[in-house]
Amino acid sequence: MKNSGNNSSRCRIVVDAMGGDFAPKNAVLGAAEAFLEKKNFDLFLVGKEQQIREVLSSNKITLSPESIINADEVIEMGDSPAASLKSKPNSSIVVGAQLVRDKKADAFVSAGNTGAMMTASTLIMGRIPGLGRPTIGAELPNVNGVCYLFDVGASKDSKPIHLFEYAIMGTIFAKEMGGITNPKVGVLSMGEEEGKGSEVAEAAVKLLKESKLNFIGNVEGRDILVGNVDVVVCDGYVGNIIIKFGESVPKLLKHLLK
Amino acid sequence: MKNSGNNSSRCRIVVDAMGGDFAPKNAVLGAAEAFLEKKNFDLFLVGKEQQIREVLSSNKITLSPESIINADEVIEMGDSPAASLKSKPNSSIVVGAQLVRDKKADAFVSAGNTGAMMTASTLIMGRIPGLGRPTIGAELPNVNGVCYLFDVGASKDSKPIHLFEYAIMGTIFAKEMGGITNPKVGVLSMGEEEGKGSEVAEAAVKLLKESKLNFIGNVEGRDILVGNVDVVVCDGYVGNIIIKFGESVPKLLKHLLK
Repeated sequence: MKNSGNNSSRCRIVVDAMGGDFAPKNAVLGAAEAFLEKKNFDLFLVGKEQQIREVLSSNKITLSPESIINADEVIEMGDSPAASLKSKPNSSIVVGAQLVRDKKADAFVSAGNTGAMMTASTLIMGRIPGLGRPTIGAELPNVNGVCYLFDVGASKDSKPIHLFEYAIMGTIFAKEMGGITNPKVGVLSMGEEEGKGSEVAEAAVKLLKESKLNFIGNVEGRDILVGNVDVVVCDGYVGNIIIKFGESVPKLLKHLLK
Repeated sequence: MKNSGNNSSRCRIVVDAMGGDFAPKNAVLGAAEAFLEKKNFDLFLVGKEQQIREVLSSNKITLSPESIINADEVIEMGDSPAASLKSKPNSSIVVGAQLVRDKKADAFVSAGNTGAMMTASTLIMGRIPGLGRPTIGAELPNVNGVCYLFDVGASKDSKPIHLFEYAIMGTIFAKEMGGITNPKVGVLSMGEEEGKGSEVAEAAVKLLKESKLNFIGNVEGRDILVGNVDVVVCDGYVGNIIIKFGESVPKLLKHLLK
């Protein structure tokens, strides 16, 4: 989440060193690799300071001392999101979100507990005025480059207005992060014709047709990978199932090729 | 759809010769190939008799004269399902469904207009007592063999009871057609824990836990191809998106391999 209150041209990004599989090693090495390659942003690693230093030194990486921010607790993958924010106030997710809230950083990235990250984003950073729900996006490869899918599991049982908001956020993301000039937006559906979506999707179509977005209408499951749409919106339940289904395809292919 | 009123041990299957891409050629040749290989069922081809005969003779296939049933009209892919059943009473889909209704056949197969087939099944053949909606299933390959996914687009915005019924029909199908002794049934969800499904999926879980089916709980998108579940149920909107997404994967892989 980018904090628009910051006037510096150089983006300050906090990475949760304790989040995801093989943390802190992979989170620290991945973040450091990106920083050393790009060097066009300020990197902060939040987590257990001693462990972060060990990963850096054993991989002969030197970062400035102020780029490591200690957080003694870790919200585990199985922890209850809402409860853990209270019971673990010194966790990397809470401290990272507070840095953005306090305008000491512009963005916070974590591969840790999704629900805790969602809740921390909403309760600690706060929502962007006018937006009802945060969203999680996925970048999927397609024939023309990439397609951005929103939402892939931040929440479920969305209302039409939420899909509409995902389309707005997705359009901004595709422009800013994907460099796509006028992103084409579609609503996931069973067919290209109107009336082929769920009730919620159809109502979102009505909202999007009235918007200034580059809305191309209903798209089908196949359009995500085919490359004729840049931003696809759907409920998080649907998006989550799609990306997990997609992730399992290589496993099946490996098996079939044996 | 199998007509349980028939006492003959030999199944009588009607195939819509006019349905699907490249009909009647592909529909006729596919049906004839299955019949000549298995010979354990009676085959009826319904459609434009002259065209069916031409396909058979130009491929040197001989079927008994009574296996071809003339139907002069064709419901096209773009036709309105409900309207076309009335406006085209001599269409292959109407005539085929009537053969099952009149107990002259046990099952009717069509690759034509899905909505017309759905409507014909419901209005002409009638529903099995106790079932609210017909369903369309897909057989997907997985590491252990196959997984059956219901519903993949017969209808959308299902209620919990519909998912429950898909699980019953899916279990019977997996047993009878897939030869799976005690099919494991799962409800598609964002996680294995309860509470990770849509509201409808969660309510269906409650119904399934009380049932005599071999219900294993929530499954994720990846489980479809991984092979730890035999029957996966979801709303038709979700299932349709999944199978179309899956169908587009080879196209992307071909592109990426170039």
